Amino acid sequence: MTAPLEVRGCRWIAVPGATDVRGSVKFLQLGKGLAFTPRRLFWLRGMPAGEWRVRQAHRDTELVLFALQGACRIQLDDGAYRQGVMLEDPASALHLAPWVWHELADFRPDSAIVVVASALLDEARTLRDYEAFKRERPR
Amino acid sequence: MTAPLEVRGCRWIAVPGATDVRGSVKFLQLGKGLAFTPRRLFWLRGMPAGEWRVRQAHRDTELVLFALQGACRIQLDDGAYRQGVMLEDPASALHLAPWVWHELADFRPDSAIVVVASALLDEARTLRDYEAFKRERPR
Repeated sequence: MTAPLEVRGCRWIAVPGATDVRGSVKFLQLGKGLAFTPRRLFWLRGMPAGEWRVRQAHRDTELVLFALQGACRIQLDDGAYRQGVMLEDPASALHLAPWVWHELADFRPDSAIVVVASALLDEARTLRDYEAFKRERPR
Repeated sequence: MTAPLEVRGCRWIAVPGATDVRGSVKFLQLGKGLAFTPRRLFWLRGMPAGEWRVRQAHRDTELVLFALQGACRIQLDDGAYRQGVMLEDPASALHLAPWVWHELADFRPDSAIVVVASALLDEARTLRDYEAFKRERPR
């Protein structure tokens, strides 16, 4: 399941699947690994080497992220502890509780990163300033 | 929005997004194009040319399908009318009501097809035999 996670609110979830001569299928299902009802889905593609995407924390929203193709580094930060892990194992998705600052970078060529969110996008409930995150995070 | 749909229970939905120097992002959000709460998500990859995937209809489950990468043909059938359309436009996803027989084939190399479903997989509520579908479909 890739690197052990030491940042509060982060955990790996198993992504089951099957492969045969007609290709592979992978699943995420509510209550079977996926702990929240998805209300939003977004996917990132075409990231040039050296670029970053997503630098934020949510006040309420839970996320599940996975590399459908390729890989990237995700920097995780609970305000007290920071850890970088690779999002690259197709059998593992990363669950983030609210109040985890996260940044995506170091995209492998042709990566496709999928993010499943528990709520619609609400800019008023999204922190995009790291200092504000540090100041406002719950202790 | 690609081909007009004439099979009952099928419609295209717009997939909004944005592209800049750091890559592209596409969204599906509940109530903003996506008409049901997702409870299951699966994605297909590595389909060899000439193979098919998914030949079925659901009694209850709604689906949204899109080509995150590449393309495929999807054969749609409401029991009275049959139509094949290409799933290839990144700005369009295909919404299927229950009781639409669907088959995926003619995958372009390196395609990644994503399916969002309104319910967990329930084999007892899934028809995999076309003749049974024709017999049991509501009129």
